[in-house]
Amino acid sequence: MPSSLPTFQIGIVGFTGYSGAEAIKILSRHPNCEPVLLEHRADSDPSKILRKSSIRRAPATPEGIESAGIHAVLLATAPEVSMDLAPKFLNAGAIVIDLSGAFRLQTPDRYKHWYKEEHTAPGLFAQAVYGLPEYNRDQIRNARLISNPGCYPTAANLAIRPLVAAGIVDPKAGIVCDAKSGVSGAGRKASLKTSFCEVTENFSAYSILRHRHIPEVLQTSGIEESAFSFTAQLIPIERGILESIYFRTARQATAADILAIYQRQYANEPFVRLYEAGHVPDLHAVQHTNFCDIGLAADPITGRAVVISAIDNLVKGAAGQAIQNLNLTLGLPETAGLL
Amino acid sequence: MPSSLPTFQIGIVGFTGYSGAEAIKILSRHPNCEPVLLEHRADSDPSKILRKSSIRRAPATPEGIESAGIHAVLLATAPEVSMDLAPKFLNAGAIVIDLSGAFRLQTPDRYKHWYKEEHTAPGLFAQAVYGLPEYNRDQIRNARLISNPGCYPTAANLAIRPLVAAGIVDPKAGIVCDAKSGVSGAGRKASLKTSFCEVTENFSAYSILRHRHIPEVLQTSGIEESAFSFTAQLIPIERGILESIYFRTARQATAADILAIYQRQYANEPFVRLYEAGHVPDLHAVQHTNFCDIGLAADPITGRAVVISAIDNLVKGAAGQAIQNLNLTLGLPETAGLL
Amino acid sequence: MPSSLPTFQIGIVGFTGYSGAEAIKILSRHPNCEPVLLEHRADSDPSKILRKSSIRRAPATPEGIESAGIHAVLLATAPEVSMDLAPKFLNAGAIVIDLSGAFRLQTPDRYKHWYKEEHTAPGLFAQAVYGLPEYNRDQIRNARLISNPGCYPTAANLAIRPLVAAGIVDPKAGIVCDAKSGVSGAGRKASLKTSFCEVTENFSAYSILRHRHIPEVLQTSGIEESAFSFTAQLIPIERGILESIYFRTARQATAADILAIYQRQYANEPFVRLYEAGHVPDLHAVQHTNFCDIGLAADPITGRAVVISAIDNLVKGAAGQAIQNLNLTLGLPETAGLL
Amino acid sequence: MPSSLPTFQIGIVGFTGYSGAEAIKILSRHPNCEPVLLEHRADSDPSKILRKSSIRRAPATPEGIESAGIHAVLLATAPEVSMDLAPKFLNAGAIVIDLSGAFRLQTPDRYKHWYKEEHTAPGLFAQAVYGLPEYNRDQIRNARLISNPGCYPTAANLAIRPLVAAGIVDPKAGIVCDAKSGVSGAGRKASLKTSFCEVTENFSAYSILRHRHIPEVLQTSGIEESAFSFTAQLIPIERGILESIYFRTARQATAADILAIYQRQYANEPFVRLYEAGHVPDLHAVQHTNFCDIGLAADPITGRAVVISAIDNLVKGAAGQAIQNLNLTLGLPETAGLL
Repeated sequence: MPSSLPTFQIGIVGFTGYSGAEAIKILSRHPNCEPVLLEHRADSDPSKILRKSSIRRAPATPEGIESAGIHAVLLATAPEVSMDLAPKFLNAGAIVIDLSGAFRLQTPDRYKHWYKEEHTAPGLFAQAVYGLPEYNRDQIRNARLISNPGCYPTAANLAIRPLVAAGIVDPKAGIVCDAKSGVSGAGRKASLKTSFCEVTENFSAYSILRHRHIPEVLQTSGIEESAFSFTAQLIPIERGILESIYFRTARQATAADILAIYQRQYANEPFVRLYEAGHVPDLHAVQHTNFCDIGLAADPITGRAVVISAIDNLVKGAAGQAIQNLNLTLGLPETAGLL
Repeated sequence: MPSSLPTFQIGIVGFTGYSGAEAIKILSRHPNCEPVLLEHRADSDPSKILRKSSIRRAPATPEGIESAGIHAVLLATAPEVSMDLAPKFLNAGAIVIDLSGAFRLQTPDRYKHWYKEEHTAPGLFAQAVYGLPEYNRDQIRNARLISNPGCYPTAANLAIRPLVAAGIVDPKAGIVCDAKSGVSGAGRKASLKTSFCEVTENFSAYSILRHRHIPEVLQTSGIEESAFSFTAQLIPIERGILESIYFRTARQATAADILAIYQRQYANEPFVRLYEAGHVPDLHAVQHTNFCDIGLAADPITGRAVVISAIDNLVKGAAGQAIQNLNLTLGLPETAGLL
Repeated sequence: MPSSLPTFQIGIVGFTGYSGAEAIKILSRHPNCEPVLLEHRADSDPSKILRKSSIRRAPATPEGIESAGIHAVLLATAPEVSMDLAPKFLNAGAIVIDLSGAFRLQTPDRYKHWYKEEHTAPGLFAQAVYGLPEYNRDQIRNARLISNPGCYPTAANLAIRPLVAAGIVDPKAGIVCDAKSGVSGAGRKASLKTSFCEVTENFSAYSILRHRHIPEVLQTSGIEESAFSFTAQLIPIERGILESIYFRTARQATAADILAIYQRQYANEPFVRLYEAGHVPDLHAVQHTNFCDIGLAADPITGRAVVISAIDNLVKGAAGQAIQNLNLTLGLPETAGLL
Repeated sequence: MPSSLPTFQIGIVGFTGYSGAEAIKILSRHPNCEPVLLEHRADSDPSKILRKSSIRRAPATPEGIESAGIHAVLLATAPEVSMDLAPKFLNAGAIVIDLSGAFRLQTPDRYKHWYKEEHTAPGLFAQAVYGLPEYNRDQIRNARLISNPGCYPTAANLAIRPLVAAGIVDPKAGIVCDAKSGVSGAGRKASLKTSFCEVTENFSAYSILRHRHIPEVLQTSGIEESAFSFTAQLIPIERGILESIYFRTARQATAADILAIYQRQYANEPFVRLYEAGHVPDLHAVQHTNFCDIGLAADPITGRAVVISAIDNLVKGAAGQAIQNLNLTLGLPETAGLL
């Protein structure tokens, strides 16, 4: 890494949550960025270690980020907090990367439909860029408000969009996306549903056909809602998303044929890894990395195909992708701090 | 339970395995049966408790079961052991319930195709009855050799067969069965793949489109192989199978309409439980029980439907169903020892 | 079980908690008892299974238990609820078995010292009997208010009391009790500390030298507080307590010598199991059982001794022991419903 | 890091094991070192990712390491393999850091006593340096054969040695070390004992009073074997060691007094972190780091004291400490690649 690159100050709101903490961890190793904890409400520090960390702190206010010289802010917050803070921080001159769902959909109406609440910053939709670098790289480079994709949609879109674009999916059968996530995807909070005894030695499905991440897959991959069946499920692990994606081929195709579609699309992508035909990733392959791993099996005679897409929901599905986006907006190497 | 019913002696081969141990646990509480441990090869007792269990033991030989007065034998063994022991024990006068895959398929050729080895007891196929009581109850009552269904097929067939029979599945889209199992399904043995560190905080797919349990689903449910996509996956838990089954309805149907199909089929079944429309089971609901729980969600406008079917792989998926079958062959109440 | 024994109606308050649910499970299989759910505040039923359970319900009031014909009530509640309900139910004629800490210590002052709050039913201390059957069996038989022991103290007292009584513990070195518990010991509630992501792949110590279960061990085992070091620790599992108990022998003693002390004490105890010298229990041996398993190792030359004591915190450490006590007060066989 | 430092080639034997894989991960991020996989027997690469890693490979032979220009070799192997390879690699001019137990004890006789087998390279004892940098830093800097400490002893010695040296431990009561480890400590191999279903939802003690790591604690901390009670226990997690260490103070001492002993000892240590008096670490605090975290509670009136020491068994307990030692021998900053 050339040492002439400047050091950027990156603020994090929501640093006690899982995504926020992951962002701090990545930024602490980043050659060109330094994290600054932006204190919002009761983000107290539970650590009792005597020699304390030297990470800087500032209030999560426009004044706070100005006086701390913050170049960009990561909002690892709930949508309602993001809708409140994003306009203020943009006005204060910072680039904003929002990890919530506040700006992922294309209109305030769609937001209201899927999130069941009014959008309180509708004026920002025009400038928000959907931060999936593999498809929006150029727009991200010039954006000042980046909406970081949801965890499930990241794994789904990277696997599905090339298939739809290549016309290999039989639309009559549609696409089934059976998605499984570790528990950190639910955020860091007290909740009976995510308490240890309810989750351990269990496996459960939720939000069948109506998860709020569905519209992100529709708008990015090009699949129709009527042709897309999505189920979210909870694995008793901390982190990781694995999605089993089923479709029927529109024309005869071997696993190698389908793999070739991905190879053409992702030949130069630093964070998408493909597997030999017939082999698929598991979660250990991607945990604590910013990779999306994709593998597949197919039966050319009957046209059945299964793609497995795996990410770490806190890295490529949240903080890692946010920093990939950050690198792009700051003109840094896209992989800085992420390999 | 009327006290006039006799006590039957039930032998178990493979009692150190997970299914065998589960069978002993159930039989130890059974009002009309007593377990007898049939010692085969090195089934040693690792317990160091001073006051030892009083369960009887006998050699796993024809002479052993005769002298021990065994009425029925559960074979919780690998297929090759079952093919060896089943004919001997049948000749010795015992009813045999085989928990392996040796006699589940309909011909030796199909066995060879899916299990990749010659069948060494082809003469027994004619008398083997597939032990899924919800569909074969009368045949089971009169059978002397019962082939206990596989764990994945039990959850799949109970969910899929009524749908196929009702003509509600659009054959062009087919059925996707995304199946997840706890690790005990792999049996009790030293293996790197099922070692703790490889499994914990992981989730992995295997045998995509070619799992040997697929033909059991085809022959029982009536779905065509070309229309059936099946993936097996490993959950980092001890026990339980949850299958997410996707199809598109052949005609407009609400969740309540599909639920009504199940209600008609399973109104009097003691071990199938249905959930209110829109609600689905998790694994905690079925672990350590002989129930198969079924729930579903559907979108009548687009025809997308998702059924969740859950069992305990060691109970309804193995030892529990074996004892349900045993009760039927012995003329006992079907639920004896199982509620 | 002689069929002439009557069926007793047993009320449970707090049936949505882990101990309460365990009590219902045990009572549902009990040959002489039937559970009745006593509804207190918001004990809602989350199950969406269509064919509902037939367990009776009644309000958790004196009128409720009278009209439901309740013989005995299990209070699986917080101490403050137990202090409120116990006197009312006793007045209504029911036997009360309290699973909270409200009546475990010997005086209201000790309660205030360890539980940091005033006792609101001090008049009941005189009649409360500490429900550890292995030591208080006769008093329990005649009690109307039984204080069910804490989970940690049950495993500790059964291991430590015979050692102290036999004079085998060197008082200068004292006793170390390093205790580990599954997460269900913390109760069923929303809490960040017991949320899945905080607990999984973790291990943590808490309440070192000041856990409120300590005085129960002191008063029952006879060890002095100054000679007793106790640490509670959280294992990332659902259930089970394992305590590693260290002492130095006051006189030369082999493992067999120490084991003989336990054998004399527990020869006829149905729920204490001992292990061959040098062998110790793990948690799988006791989960879902009412057993306390004890094993030990010792070095006669240096006088070091280690005892391992294991129970299921929800069974012998809570609901199972409560029903063992219930059986005693109702004149039923002590093991009814528990083997 | 000054860019003028050279890049060292570091060979790893046993790179498919957990410690070896951890070493590769750390070295891949190290600013001055590059890993080279030394292939020994069947270290096959299971990865099916198309774009393969670019890590160099060489045979695990003297010729292999010479032609690959290896400066130092990490032996993440069993003792018998280390005894075979260490002399060969030393002769070939490489520095050897051995992660096995082959050279940790002070004489071949002690090795035979605790490891139950003959030592086959007794001539190397004279030059082997015990690689605990906090105590042997200067010797390590000049060593060519470093014996990397065991995982349990690392956590134990860092906690116990300052106490013994300060004379704060009452020798009559001795020290109890109740140690718990994640399953990766048992190595990567097929074994029923460490299979998922045997370990999950379990907790078990093993090698009570006779674990082969005990002599490492005795020789480094200065505690007598007769005064040291050690139990190893298995936590159902992947990685991490937490040790609860009990002693009675030889003179009146508060938690702050004991903490001050540690503060004096470890004021300038980069990898030992202390906690405020009364607070203790959990495993999440140390996983994936090279820190040893130490916290404690004490009761000055009765003299009871409890110290909690926590490390990641694969990092400070194995690969991380090996690279800390490597840095010292190569003249690199001690923390390079480790923060």
